[in-house]
Amino acid sequence: MTSATPFPSADGLWTGLRLAPGAAPGAALDADTEAAIAVTEGTIRWVGARSALPARFEGLPLHDGGGALVTPGLVDCHTHLVYGGQRANEFAMRLAGATYEEVAKAGGGIVSSVRATREADEDALFAQAAPRLEQLLADGVCAIEIKSGYGLALEHEQKQLRVARRLGEAYGVTVRTTFLGAHALPPEYAGRSGDYIDLVCSQMLPALAAEGLVDAVDVFCERIAFSLAETEQVFKAAKALGLPVKLHAEQLSDMGGAALAARYGALSCDHIEHLSAEGIEAMRQSGTVAVLLPGAYYTLRDTQLPPIEALRTAGVPMAVSTDHNPGTSPALSLLLMMNMACTLFRLTVPEALAGVTVHAARALGLQDTHGTIAEDMPANFVLWNVRDAAELAYWFGQRPVRTVVRQGRIAVGATR
Amino acid sequence: MTSATPFPSADGLWTGLRLAPGAAPGAALDADTEAAIAVTEGTIRWVGARSALPARFEGLPLHDGGGALVTPGLVDCHTHLVYGGQRANEFAMRLAGATYEEVAKAGGGIVSSVRATREADEDALFAQAAPRLEQLLADGVCAIEIKSGYGLALEHEQKQLRVARRLGEAYGVTVRTTFLGAHALPPEYAGRSGDYIDLVCSQMLPALAAEGLVDAVDVFCERIAFSLAETEQVFKAAKALGLPVKLHAEQLSDMGGAALAARYGALSCDHIEHLSAEGIEAMRQSGTVAVLLPGAYYTLRDTQLPPIEALRTAGVPMAVSTDHNPGTSPALSLLLMMNMACTLFRLTVPEALAGVTVHAARALGLQDTHGTIAEDMPANFVLWNVRDAAELAYWFGQRPVRTVVRQGRIAVGATR
Ligand SMILES: [Zn+2]
Ligand SMILES: [Zn+2]
Repeated sequence: MTSATPFPSADGLWTGLRLAPGAAPGAALDADTEAAIAVTEGTIRWVGARSALPARFEGLPLHDGGGALVTPGLVDCHTHLVYGGQRANEFAMRLAGATYEEVAKAGGGIVSSVRATREADEDALFAQAAPRLEQLLADGVCAIEIKSGYGLALEHEQKQLRVARRLGEAYGVTVRTTFLGAHALPPEYAGRSGDYIDLVCSQMLPALAAEGLVDAVDVFCERIAFSLAETEQVFKAAKALGLPVKLHAEQLSDMGGAALAARYGALSCDHIEHLSAEGIEAMRQSGTVAVLLPGAYYTLRDTQLPPIEALRTAGVPMAVSTDHNPGTSPALSLLLMMNMACTLFRLTVPEALAGVTVHAARALGLQDTHGTIAEDMPANFVLWNVRDAAELAYWFGQRPVRTVVRQGRIAVGATR
Repeated sequence: MTSATPFPSADGLWTGLRLAPGAAPGAALDADTEAAIAVTEGTIRWVGARSALPARFEGLPLHDGGGALVTPGLVDCHTHLVYGGQRANEFAMRLAGATYEEVAKAGGGIVSSVRATREADEDALFAQAAPRLEQLLADGVCAIEIKSGYGLALEHEQKQLRVARRLGEAYGVTVRTTFLGAHALPPEYAGRSGDYIDLVCSQMLPALAAEGLVDAVDVFCERIAFSLAETEQVFKAAKALGLPVKLHAEQLSDMGGAALAARYGALSCDHIEHLSAEGIEAMRQSGTVAVLLPGAYYTLRDTQLPPIEALRTAGVPMAVSTDHNPGTSPALSLLLMMNMACTLFRLTVPEALAGVTVHAARALGLQDTHGTIAEDMPANFVLWNVRDAAELAYWFGQRPVRTVVRQGRIAVGATR
């Protein structure tokens, strides 16, 4: 496992770089000007044109970028990465013509993920999530959100979130944990949605927050999940604990969730295929990020596009994420999501790149430490074997990473 | 570059394997039975249950597969891998709202690939294609078809095909070259389609065949390309030289190309979104493979599905390929095409797996050397870090290769 070997320090002077457009707002060089990044103690001390490097950085050990394009480390701001089992068999059964009932009878559907998550202990959950995380990291991810929501009971949600924290430590990657107890109604609460939400608000959330396992609180607000009133109940509980909220909103229908979330100052509203004009305006006013999830749209063969043009016009920041989950988006590459955001959602290339960097960081409240290359930020950046930034979105199924600097360490590749 | 280091020999006894369904028709074990493969002099000498291994193979040096799932080496049976330049900028312009005319004015479209291919010399074309090939090989590809068709003049088509051959030698991968002089009308022949086809048939094809650069002959038969009569003229020229044919058929409309190709015993008809019942019946009778290209379907946001159910019912073998090309399918992972074939075309998992192995090999006339694991075949197989074969199609954006044995050598990973 990667974590067994400590990664070498990235301290030194990184030269021979070309900055992707928007990568370093403070420097704003064109990609043909040789750029340099000075790193000491794992922190970016300076970024700019190589020719303008302050003399005090000249003595640092050199890392030659060889002309590579550099972007901020990628940020995957919406994942359900930690769960027991997987659902490849269900995927195969459905393609072979099995009905929903037959799949359910064979133990499929979200219930199967809940069961497998409950049955697994922390070590087993860690061992299962680790290779998935490794796939995402190999693609340049330097910060990742991980939600609970397959435990649906205190001890099992706790396991998921503890594993999320452990993954962050083991791999040296920034992990933001999100409590999504209100993901689905657990089987033992069938017909007692209100009782379950009471449990979420009065017991699960306070206990998990007390253990420091909750960076944000999320709800799946949908006809097939929780109502607007239940969503607000969870938001109130989060607010009482001083925790930021976000929402799985308007994926299947317009529930008015986005406007509610905006009233609570939500970090992000995610999915939003059916987002209304009122929802967009509310998000604009509250500074809420729109998180687009093209992998789920693709897997579900959805045809309802999110209102990209209206979001663009309103100036709502758009992020792009994998939504990694075993049912509707078993995606293991954030770079592929850039391509899907462009191809399926018609995002422009700069929008897609901002969507997996600066706007994704903002969706996690990490805008001061991730998503751009700037002085005093931790060193999180990626060198790519491509000529143009557009190539990151144009080719698909590629793995063009040359070097990943994550948390001030050279986590992939080496240039010395 | 990979080719600088010769890969270690794969000779020995491979144990601790689990055979993917269909991988070794002669052995036909279930995936829970430990399998073994004996390799000497780069050739598979035996495959079956470990417990049934003939005594004469017991002394071979061991390669422990560690319980990995094993499939035949993948076969990418339709690519345009060798070309000058790329079109990421065009991709970005289109997303930013540029019209076709503006793109054309900025030098975009297929004309730009033709220009860049003509301007590049052999070494430059090799250097540009090599990293693309490396991406495909990293995914387990052991045989690949490479078409010409961006030169559109003898010397430039010759360059493309020579580079295809060189790539095969440099990387130790089986390359099948396809002459696609009839890909598009070169600008200097505007309005003189007949003259160009005459040139293709009477000069280009014979010269390239004489140099041993043509394993098969292809035509783009479409309203926007070449007519049915022109297609037949090329097929006749191929037949006169004893070369097999294949066809880009019925992608945008039903031209009757598939039936024509079947009459000429075509190896494959490719794209076939608009394939008719007559075309299917003709393909069935001639044993022609249907090559499905979901990456192009995806990139073009096409909505016309190929007639999968009718092909299935007729028993026409279906292959799946990247169609790698700079315009309509900049795809760099055949594994991702398995996912797209399932997700977008609703192929079953066994169909998708056969589509990138046994049926793809047949589409190249390579059924005796590729696409299955069997006695007396060259050692081309892949060990995967997945539990179920269905996981190869279920996850997307992954790179789960553990070890690639290609042409009897350990080309990726190592197990000693
Ligand atoms: Zn989600
Ligand atoms: Zn093609």
